[in-house]
Amino acid sequence: MSERDLIARIRELFPRAGDDAAIIGRQLITNDVLVENVDFTRAIPLRLIARKSLTINLSDIAAMGGRPRYAIVAIGSPDEKGAATIIEELAIAAKENDVEIAGGDLSRSEHLFISVTLIGEASQPILRSGARRGDRVYLSRPIGGSAAGLSLLQRGTEGADYAEREFIESAKRRHLEPEAEVDLGMKLVSIATSCIDVSDGFSTDLHHLCDASKVGALIDGDRIPAFQDLPRFGPRLGINVRDAVLHGGEEYALLFTSALRESELSARVGRPVYAVGRITQEPGVRINGEVLEPRGFDHFL
Amino acid sequence: MSERDLIARIRELFPRAGDDAAIIGRQLITNDVLVENVDFTRAIPLRLIARKSLTINLSDIAAMGGRPRYAIVAIGSPDEKGAATIIEELAIAAKENDVEIAGGDLSRSEHLFISVTLIGEASQPILRSGARRGDRVYLSRPIGGSAAGLSLLQRGTEGADYAEREFIESAKRRHLEPEAEVDLGMKLVSIATSCIDVSDGFSTDLHHLCDASKVGALIDGDRIPAFQDLPRFGPRLGINVRDAVLHGGEEYALLFTSALRESELSARVGRPVYAVGRITQEPGVRINGEVLEPRGFDHFL
Repeated sequence: MSERDLIARIRELFPRAGDDAAIIGRQLITNDVLVENVDFTRAIPLRLIARKSLTINLSDIAAMGGRPRYAIVAIGSPDEKGAATIIEELAIAAKENDVEIAGGDLSRSEHLFISVTLIGEASQPILRSGARRGDRVYLSRPIGGSAAGLSLLQRGTEGADYAEREFIESAKRRHLEPEAEVDLGMKLVSIATSCIDVSDGFSTDLHHLCDASKVGALIDGDRIPAFQDLPRFGPRLGINVRDAVLHGGEEYALLFTSALRESELSARVGRPVYAVGRITQEPGVRINGEVLEPRGFDHFL
Repeated sequence: MSERDLIARIRELFPRAGDDAAIIGRQLITNDVLVENVDFTRAIPLRLIARKSLTINLSDIAAMGGRPRYAIVAIGSPDEKGAATIIEELAIAAKENDVEIAGGDLSRSEHLFISVTLIGEASQPILRSGARRGDRVYLSRPIGGSAAGLSLLQRGTEGADYAEREFIESAKRRHLEPEAEVDLGMKLVSIATSCIDVSDGFSTDLHHLCDASKVGALIDGDRIPAFQDLPRFGPRLGINVRDAVLHGGEEYALLFTSALRESELSARVGRPVYAVGRITQEPGVRINGEVLEPRGFDHFL
């Protein structure tokens, strides 16, 4: 069975899969797992892995305009100390986000994993499937920093001067300590026609959104906001800036559509958001006149 | 941090932990993980591991008198084929139990794990904490078969004759294909004063129930129903029958209390149940006049 077949089969068996979270009545339910040596290495402090395991789930609820409420946490750990660190940090992060940890399970495991199920509430969830021809395509914030940070972490790059070191640290932080756009998501409920979070990469997630909405998109590459100083420092640090921005995953920015223009939308949500293109009737995604293939990381689910 | 300290800390941080499932409004939420080389080995067919991962969660909902509704499944697997087998089997098992798989996550992982979050409904959940002095202590079915089956599986024991082989097979099956008492749990809602499932072993789970209810229990050892033919074949197959019955885990029978007498209770639920003792004001568990220590497997949570 190929990966494509497997995904098709999962969609068949898990009929609610397709949006960032499953909708059950007024509840949104999502689950994401982080696995040692796949999603992270032990070089990263457990504290940050614990926080990230919650953030990626918060982002799924944010992408549907929901309010996160309850988390159920399953932890596999080779030792009690690691499990205790994760639990302590999850408790702090949950509290910061008004989430109650409602229960969980702890198990010994040769390799560490954290599985978080997050339950949120939304009376009117934003779907991936609501984008309509003529809608503007928006990004909630500059992207590309997470992929740059990951690359810098893996290569152990040090900066040549203060400004470069500053950039390196902020890119690493963007990768290690991402933030979910929960407040923005809730504000978008009656504003956005569709929404997804940038977890697999702009190109891949925009394709997901367009496929679900049965539309296409025309993107103006010059309007995509790049992570601060990435265009300046990226090239000399060996980072392909275009790839990091267009295809880099784990951003957790929101990618959404709305009929409103940028200035009006920014005013409504009380912060800047970035119009980067338009939805088209014709399927397919084009950027500056060329086809944009989905080249990000595509999860099984 | 000792394991005892860790458990205490988890109770503090996860305030809803304590019953078999967390109660949120009318919902019950539970999560159990099975991890390769800890909870199972790859000698066991994936099909059975998948089913068991749902069953242990169904049993948590059953112990609180709930109706299972939605499952969220996180799977870590080294290969797609394994993941596909698990998903196919979970879909079948979920359907058999009127459970909808509402979503999930799939990840690569060096070792297999399955984490199931199960959501159930109960307008009036049965707690561990409701046992009162004078209540009878009940078991829903004979126990000891799972521990016997595990021991026989590990030693690869073969039977000497037909009857013995029959026993060996049924004990293995009890371990590999346990059944949750969902229907009984729902019937017990207005009948049982407290309930827990026998997952850690009769002695340990009875202690959990008594501790939560701030009571003790007097157990009549002769009335504890042993798994079919276990007393007959166990000793010559090298199984300590007393240990298997009193301390063997993964039974998923229900252990509950009620003021009703055995004949009346059996009639109300339409099947045999087994009165094995009485709840006492005085704390501690005694069996045939002697102290019964909790010697089963105590999970972290």
